[in-house]
Amino acid sequence: MFRLFSQTRRCLQVKRALQRQEWPLRPAHLTAATQQASFSTVSVEHLSRSDSWPKDVGILALEVYFPSQYVEQVELEKYDGVEAGKYTLGLGQKQMGFCSAHEDINSLCLTVVQRLVERSRLSWDSIGRLEVGTETIIDKSKAVKTVLMQLFQDSGNTDVEGIDTTNACYGGTASLFNSVDWVESSSWDGRYAMVVCGDIAVYATGNARPTGGAGAVAMLVGPEAPLVLERGVRGTHMEHVYDFYKPDLASEYPMVDGKLSIQCYLRALDQCYSVYRKKIQSQWQKVGVDKPFTLEDFQFMIFHTPFCKLVQKSVGRMMLNDFLAAPNPDTQSGLYKGLQAFRYSAQQLAGSRIGAFSYGSGLAASLFSMRVSQDAAPGSPLDKLVSSLSDLQTRLDARKCVPPEEFAEIMKQREKSHHLVNHTPQGSKDDLFPGTWYLERVDDKHRRQYARRPL
Amino acid sequence: MFRLFSQTRRCLQVKRALQRQEWPLRPAHLTAATQQASFSTVSVEHLSRSDSWPKDVGILALEVYFPSQYVEQVELEKYDGVEAGKYTLGLGQKQMGFCSAHEDINSLCLTVVQRLVERSRLSWDSIGRLEVGTETIIDKSKAVKTVLMQLFQDSGNTDVEGIDTTNACYGGTASLFNSVDWVESSSWDGRYAMVVCGDIAVYATGNARPTGGAGAVAMLVGPEAPLVLERGVRGTHMEHVYDFYKPDLASEYPMVDGKLSIQCYLRALDQCYSVYRKKIQSQWQKVGVDKPFTLEDFQFMIFHTPFCKLVQKSVGRMMLNDFLAAPNPDTQSGLYKGLQAFRYSAQQLAGSRIGAFSYGSGLAASLFSMRVSQDAAPGSPLDKLVSSLSDLQTRLDARKCVPPEEFAEIMKQREKSHHLVNHTPQGSKDDLFPGTWYLERVDDKHRRQYARRPL
Repeated sequence: MFRLFSQTRRCLQVKRALQRQEWPLRPAHLTAATQQASFSTVSVEHLSRSDSWPKDVGILALEVYFPSQYVEQVELEKYDGVEAGKYTLGLGQKQMGFCSAHEDINSLCLTVVQRLVERSRLSWDSIGRLEVGTETIIDKSKAVKTVLMQLFQDSGNTDVEGIDTTNACYGGTASLFNSVDWVESSSWDGRYAMVVCGDIAVYATGNARPTGGAGAVAMLVGPEAPLVLERGVRGTHMEHVYDFYKPDLASEYPMVDGKLSIQCYLRALDQCYSVYRKKIQSQWQKVGVDKPFTLEDFQFMIFHTPFCKLVQKSVGRMMLNDFLAAPNPDTQSGLYKGLQAFRYSAQQLAGSRIGAFSYGSGLAASLFSMRVSQDAAPGSPLDKLVSSLSDLQTRLDARKCVPPEEFAEIMKQREKSHHLVNHTPQGSKDDLFPGTWYLERVDDKHRRQYARRPL
Repeated sequence: MFRLFSQTRRCLQVKRALQRQEWPLRPAHLTAATQQASFSTVSVEHLSRSDSWPKDVGILALEVYFPSQYVEQVELEKYDGVEAGKYTLGLGQKQMGFCSAHEDINSLCLTVVQRLVERSRLSWDSIGRLEVGTETIIDKSKAVKTVLMQLFQDSGNTDVEGIDTTNACYGGTASLFNSVDWVESSSWDGRYAMVVCGDIAVYATGNARPTGGAGAVAMLVGPEAPLVLERGVRGTHMEHVYDFYKPDLASEYPMVDGKLSIQCYLRALDQCYSVYRKKIQSQWQKVGVDKPFTLEDFQFMIFHTPFCKLVQKSVGRMMLNDFLAAPNPDTQSGLYKGLQAFRYSAQQLAGSRIGAFSYGSGLAASLFSMRVSQDAAPGSPLDKLVSSLSDLQTRLDARKCVPPEEFAEIMKQREKSHHLVNHTPQGSKDDLFPGTWYLERVDDKHRRQYARRPL
């Protein structure tokens, strides 16, 4: 999650087990069968539920996983022989996490899902939907979701809907939308949905390499959430472009047209913001509020971050949009006036609106918003969520700093071993965080076996 | 769509332009903003809609595309040097469609989507969601959906949600569920959803090759449909298995453990049917109907068809399940008694329940059901849908029969050219059906350009 004008990349994290009671599982109201004339069977008819969609559907809990090692971007500048500041000032990057050969997209997702379930004290059969958004494809057919079903095995729960969704960095957003729709639809059976977003982003040596990263996030979705997806306002923009894509299926590296991709990102932001504004203003007008929506109406903004500098540019871009859309803009003092509103600390989220811009090359983009619940009292869902994410810095600091030479060597190893069969990943597993799943072995038929580091 | 005990694979087809008036677009009821205390902005609150979910959400129209050439399985038996009847009797296969080098997953989906829009006389901006289910991955990042956005370009409609979904043959089913959920959720903006299922299934020479195929289906999803997805009853089974998967990303061919895959398919059928029965019986009990659900309660069944023989076995399997679940089964005459009920012609669908079993290796499977609308009068949505699908045989007969030698040669060409850059597919395009999109060129940066045969 990114505060506006935040200079560094900030991530969400989980501090402690949520220690929450399980939310009561409310069965969907499944009712009213009537006899049918033409056949012997009995038909199924849903009666209207007493209230239409469940209240406040959104994110109940979050878990974040990132690899235990990183490389300093300032060291990478020296190693790559580029001018000082190219990565750190030019791109706004500071440190880059990366995976060793022991980790792949399956192990990342295994880890983050198990952690969320364990720390939230969920039972495996309380989950009725699980889906994965990723562009880290190591099998063209078998979904990461099916690999995650190993975790459910002892519970006997196999009635878990949802599967993998892909388009560059947008898959996770599409999965979140799908899960929220599911909870609001007649398909909902009263259980939780879980959305997993994971990727290992690595680039060939060159300009794009310092914009890599790796990690996974799992989100628990259901009603009465502290982070509620606002209804009927999201703006989407999709287009056919070759700005970033992965046509060389045997390689982990993408094809990147960096300049085009930045143009696409900003164009998508313009379009999504325009549609979002139009929809929310239309809602406001229906209840007699006639004012333009501006950046001031978001208290926080989250941006997809190809690199940190682009996020700062994006804020300026949205203000430019406001300016262009305003009938009589105050060019003297109005344009920057609202920025004070963003100077909250994390605990002051209650009641705010968080805008979120998601971009996936190719391209698919959406701007949507979340409303934070008003209740921030100790023990409230919001308090629990915020507390669970408060030790991010400690966890980031616990990572091992790896020199660029070693990083480059590990990248070479990954290139070589990426699709080997009869293969056991080399090197020590000691650096993996406790509770991390890792790739143990790929057998002669490409079947992957995973194991877990002790907690 | 498969009738029970149907000996041959039957597909849905479109006979003529639906000539339907566009369904009225009903905007979602977006309402009620209230002032918020802590921030300057206005919040968004949906009031309950007057009736909860839209009525009868399901499939409004269908379009089917298959390639214009096929190989006779009886000829393939001779060419492969296997015993006569191995493919035709043993697997129940008759003819196998396949693509030339001019077609890829993008061109297949371009064709089927444009045909559905043109024949249904839809405007491109009447579509608010479009998603693709496929396991034919030619780019690990860029979704087929983004390629389809080319078709929307002139309309200016880029606010189209949905993206690609993958797990073997299950992706299309997941997409259909997602789209139906979307229409029932607060995300729905009153426009249509479109679901595209497409794949090119080719196998290395050997046992699995005769089970290949290629095609695409586009479905228009919305309320007041002639094929309504029944609510709250679907049974899902997901599991981690390596029965069929595609870990060799550079190859079009999968890894297949055929024997294991059949076991998995039947186990998934057992599980899904068990969950489905439990859910529907629970609904019936709530309205005082206390009887077991049996195969007799489906008037038609659709099965995922790895090969035709397995579908016939599956019906027996479901009857076995009924038998095992029955408290006092009539072993004398009851077991096969209900089968007469399935001997309807296609026009007698009205009011029936169609069961559908979807299986994707890896594995993900669901059993769900559709209720057919009661109104079958001339001009009714059901009548239009059925009419639009009535010339399948004519269209199948219009395909070109290709001898196995030529088929094998085309497969070899595909292997060689599968991921070439700076490449123009070879051979004549004259055999493509009118209105078919095809791959024109892959440039030096893997970017794909498509063109369309005149209508």
